[in-house]
Amino acid sequence: MSEDKGADGGIPRHLPPKGSDTRSQELLYDPNIPTPSHSEHARTMVSKIGTGTLCTLSSEPEGYPYGSFVTYAIHDGNPIFLISGLAEHTKNLQNSPQSSLLVAEAGEGNPLALGRTTLIGDCERMSDEERESAKQVFLASHPDATFYVDFKDFYFYKLIVQSARYIGGFGRMSWIGGDDWMAAEPDPLANAAADIIEHMNDDHRDAMIECCKKLSKATDTSDATMTGIDRYGFEMSAMTEQGPRPIRLAFKDQAHTSEDARMEIIALVKKARSQK
Amino acid sequence: MSEDKGADGGIPRHLPPKGSDTRSQELLYDPNIPTPSHSEHARTMVSKIGTGTLCTLSSEPEGYPYGSFVTYAIHDGNPIFLISGLAEHTKNLQNSPQSSLLVAEAGEGNPLALGRTTLIGDCERMSDEERESAKQVFLASHPDATFYVDFKDFYFYKLIVQSARYIGGFGRMSWIGGDDWMAAEPDPLANAAADIIEHMNDDHRDAMIECCKKLSKATDTSDATMTGIDRYGFEMSAMTEQGPRPIRLAFKDQAHTSEDARMEIIALVKKARSQK
Repeated sequence: MSEDKGADGGIPRHLPPKGSDTRSQELLYDPNIPTPSHSEHARTMVSKIGTGTLCTLSSEPEGYPYGSFVTYAIHDGNPIFLISGLAEHTKNLQNSPQSSLLVAEAGEGNPLALGRTTLIGDCERMSDEERESAKQVFLASHPDATFYVDFKDFYFYKLIVQSARYIGGFGRMSWIGGDDWMAAEPDPLANAAADIIEHMNDDHRDAMIECCKKLSKATDTSDATMTGIDRYGFEMSAMTEQGPRPIRLAFKDQAHTSEDARMEIIALVKKARSQK
Repeated sequence: MSEDKGADGGIPRHLPPKGSDTRSQELLYDPNIPTPSHSEHARTMVSKIGTGTLCTLSSEPEGYPYGSFVTYAIHDGNPIFLISGLAEHTKNLQNSPQSSLLVAEAGEGNPLALGRTTLIGDCERMSDEERESAKQVFLASHPDATFYVDFKDFYFYKLIVQSARYIGGFGRMSWIGGDDWMAAEPDPLANAAADIIEHMNDDHRDAMIECCKKLSKATDTSDATMTGIDRYGFEMSAMTEQGPRPIRLAFKDQAHTSEDARMEIIALVKKARSQK
């Protein structure tokens, strides 16, 4: 399993029908600025969501891959589940630990443009020694489970991530090895991102337009909205004469808190405004 | 595979910890009134959603069940997919047709209280003869796919439903055979239900309270909200002195349109108001 390199990596490309317009557009910002890795994107996504599809090998009908809806929490990098001994997926796991968990972002617009991650590995019942820490982690994410966490026929299972498939949207995808998965950290701004984005789009459009015009090649930007923010920088959609274009700007230092991010954004706006 | 019968069918029950309150509450309406079957509930749910998790048998790592995000449409009762020859799930299906599709409802509150359905069967590339009808059905649900439907490396696949697992929420679940799946029809009010429910809850609370008081055993109802409606009747949450309780009332005749449903509800309200 190797990482797909996108446009530059020589991987197979989709073949458009004859006569299609296949021009690709020039990127309007420096592609070499710090950006979260696919492993970091995937870990951030999985840390935020909490529900997904557990895929197990069915006992009846035998050998079919069986998808079931689950809640999960992340325990030392691996997803854990609190599942009933009566449920189909639990019976399946008792026969075969081979499994995967698909976690998908929800949102508006074309659903295939949204991100998703599949974690693959063996899923086994957790030991009694791990139960207390599993319970603590799981209930923090799923307080409703307090009601049945101590039922005698509910068990904690852990999927030990062996590899992961990340799809960030059209054409952004990678295989991630288990070691890279474990080494990557969820983005520290993950929980604050939505509020920062809303605030910037409500109150600071002019500042973002200035950033696009002066700090990227989108010099004809007429409007700009923030679309993402992470420890390394932030992303905008700049409305240009050629239509909406993505722009990414890097922070000087990594932002670990909302306040860090605020200071970094202010510094970029100042830099933009100081340029002719 | 047999149908779980819930409280009356003698299936294994979850074991609460010692000292738990295990009293079950009396149903406040006639349990024998017409109600959609689990097959009908499942077909209705799957007809409305359009995205899910396709579970295939992984080629690498070999033999693992692999979950991927897909869009689907329903073609003669079976889910169909428009998938790229480059995608992992397509490579997996080329090696083994065994697959399932999990479709889950989205919503607020406890995610495990929401409905989901797993369709299990073999998923194979559709024939050239089926392509036009597949394209028509698929694009009606997913107009964004117009852009790539004619790409040379995208193919229609069809999962022929062999069995289905329906989970309607806590304790409501069944295995559904392929014949029952095919025979069931999506509810004709499926697309209108949300608007009817909103209208009833905005403007007709008093009428629903009257229905609960006079047409069910919830004689002390102080408030009532509609929670569901289908061809056979509608469901409310009645606020009683013992807390919120579910109430279902049956229509005299099946409702095939919003107007049918309106007339049936008016008839029930008149009946309630005519009773002392």
